[in-house]
Amino acid sequence: MHAHTPRVLERHLFGPGPSNPYPEATAALALPLLGHLDPAFLEIMDATCDDLRQVWGTRNTRTLPLSATGSAGMEAAFVNTVRPGDVAVIAVNGLFGRRMCDVAARCGAEVVPVEHEWGTPVDAQRVADAHPSPTVIGAVHAETSTGVRSDIAALGAIKGDALLIVDAVTSIGGIEVCADDWGVDVGYAGTQKCLGVAPGLAPFTINDRAFERRVENPQSWYLDLGLLGGYVGEASGSGRRTYHHTAPVAMVASLHAGLRRILDEGLENVWNRHAETGLVLQEGLLKMGLELFAEEGHRLPELTTVRVPDGVDSAAVRRYLLERHNLEIGAGAGEFAATVWRIGLMGHNARPDAALLVLAALEDALRANRG
Amino acid sequence: MHAHTPRVLERHLFGPGPSNPYPEATAALALPLLGHLDPAFLEIMDATCDDLRQVWGTRNTRTLPLSATGSAGMEAAFVNTVRPGDVAVIAVNGLFGRRMCDVAARCGAEVVPVEHEWGTPVDAQRVADAHPSPTVIGAVHAETSTGVRSDIAALGAIKGDALLIVDAVTSIGGIEVCADDWGVDVGYAGTQKCLGVAPGLAPFTINDRAFERRVENPQSWYLDLGLLGGYVGEASGSGRRTYHHTAPVAMVASLHAGLRRILDEGLENVWNRHAETGLVLQEGLLKMGLELFAEEGHRLPELTTVRVPDGVDSAAVRRYLLERHNLEIGAGAGEFAATVWRIGLMGHNARPDAALLVLAALEDALRANRG
Repeated sequence: MHAHTPRVLERHLFGPGPSNPYPEATAALALPLLGHLDPAFLEIMDATCDDLRQVWGTRNTRTLPLSATGSAGMEAAFVNTVRPGDVAVIAVNGLFGRRMCDVAARCGAEVVPVEHEWGTPVDAQRVADAHPSPTVIGAVHAETSTGVRSDIAALGAIKGDALLIVDAVTSIGGIEVCADDWGVDVGYAGTQKCLGVAPGLAPFTINDRAFERRVENPQSWYLDLGLLGGYVGEASGSGRRTYHHTAPVAMVASLHAGLRRILDEGLENVWNRHAETGLVLQEGLLKMGLELFAEEGHRLPELTTVRVPDGVDSAAVRRYLLERHNLEIGAGAGEFAATVWRIGLMGHNARPDAALLVLAALEDALRANRG
Repeated sequence: MHAHTPRVLERHLFGPGPSNPYPEATAALALPLLGHLDPAFLEIMDATCDDLRQVWGTRNTRTLPLSATGSAGMEAAFVNTVRPGDVAVIAVNGLFGRRMCDVAARCGAEVVPVEHEWGTPVDAQRVADAHPSPTVIGAVHAETSTGVRSDIAALGAIKGDALLIVDAVTSIGGIEVCADDWGVDVGYAGTQKCLGVAPGLAPFTINDRAFERRVENPQSWYLDLGLLGGYVGEASGSGRRTYHHTAPVAMVASLHAGLRRILDEGLENVWNRHAETGLVLQEGLLKMGLELFAEEGHRLPELTTVRVPDGVDSAAVRRYLLERHNLEIGAGAGEFAATVWRIGLMGHNARPDAALLVLAALEDALRANRG
């Protein structure tokens, strides 16, 4: 039992996600709940899918928020397209490419990983050379583990007959995504990064080409796109909806509010805001004498990776920032856990004032922790 | 673009779920977001798991909220326990038992369904007689499709060496659940019914017996309990947490607030409130001359099924209730879609005033729609 109400913490969420949501998205979470089959909710769901098409840069009918986090979006992508024995060529330049290999293998794929040095972008030619006739090619647009942007259009150009599966978890709503123009067949994302919404949904899109080749009765009932389509996507506006599972109505309402905020501001303006903020941060870090981890020319504005200076305890700095300034930044991923920090200025946090704050706070933390 | 802010709808959610959340649960959704690795959030997560153990009636270490809706809980139960060729005996007395068969089949199980007439409870002896040595036995505690309660302890008594998998989506937090005493090995639930929280999480519990027999590298990466345990469950309080996926932090905070509300009121008091409310509703319906669908003696207090009177258009009544009274009740499930209504008074809605309201509104709707 709580004898008293605990103090409400307000954190600056400047790690690799979740980010602080847009206030409109938070407000929508607390609105009175609607039933998942209420016509008023179905309108919100359909509008959400429309808005998602805009941030994905697609006209795919089957564009929808899956009822789980971004990682489930990855699973949905492979479960619905890969049969045992299929060849999955996966570009690996960080943790999330590596995870794709694991998920594809659980679908029975023969996985062909194309390993890249972490911190560098995907080399489309190496991916093309990896196998003559893959069933699917997988790649991460914005590697959350390294802060690197890869050229998805270049992969679309070499994909041949393969389906191109793209992880846009950390790119959507922050930098340009043009799923249709780039040749993306299946894309998945998360809500808690540049879309500025709490975690809990996976914005997903699949084109006709991929849907026609889909796995019937895939191993996942929950993520079976053939069943989901009866409730959302192709059922939109048809008046005939089939119950599949209970949609997370509060989260969908919140995503809708976040997307409205983004589209009201204008998608290009939002991208520019992310670009400008990232530049302020990255130039500031260089000016402080710090070294950026991601290769120049391929750095994400929304997620910056920076090397921990020699002799500095990475965890102590992060703890100091959290305790003194209520400011969260991320550790590095995988083998770079102790040697890299990840600083995200995403969605609502993609603002020059947030960049100034994190620079000042990091300077303070380094001063206090250099021993 | 919206030229204006749309009017906020307030619905009485008296269908089979979601129900109107406890106000504490709604308020928690809108609190400032925490990172999923923030020590302050991990405290909330651990406290949530503790509270879940109480509503499950279990001491299982591995009791946690899965990051998806209740249906994903069903998938997690089978994916982690069933290998191709395993025998799954499933008691089917409604839609959700039937769904268990589908999900188990996708895991490669040899499914032995034990069909019961809808509206009747599970007959443990028939389940015992269905197969001499099943790997798992599956059953639904509270069938959301029919409003029937089954005796889970009776299944625990006959399970033998099999693992007992129980769907407690519509029972947890509304009627007594004693997972350990009843011999439940794996249980899953939802948040949007008697727990009085928005949909989006699947409270889940698995005991050591089931965990030791679990499938290594199951077909689902997202629902792999072996991986999830590094972040929540056995990792609790250890100080060592492994990132698996980004937890839906706002939903977890909301679940925590809902559970606190329930446990502050007292679990038995909450069950009594559901029982009393269900009685007021069911006696009122009978007094109106309506016929209840679920077999007497096995009726759930939190979810009442009632036959649509002859000559009454079921959909027209539901539409009238929604449009005139902002009150949602559910259609029947499966073949009873047009001939049964489902009225849920769950969680925050398990109150005598809600029962009186739905009775009065239904009387009004029948008067207006008898033609």
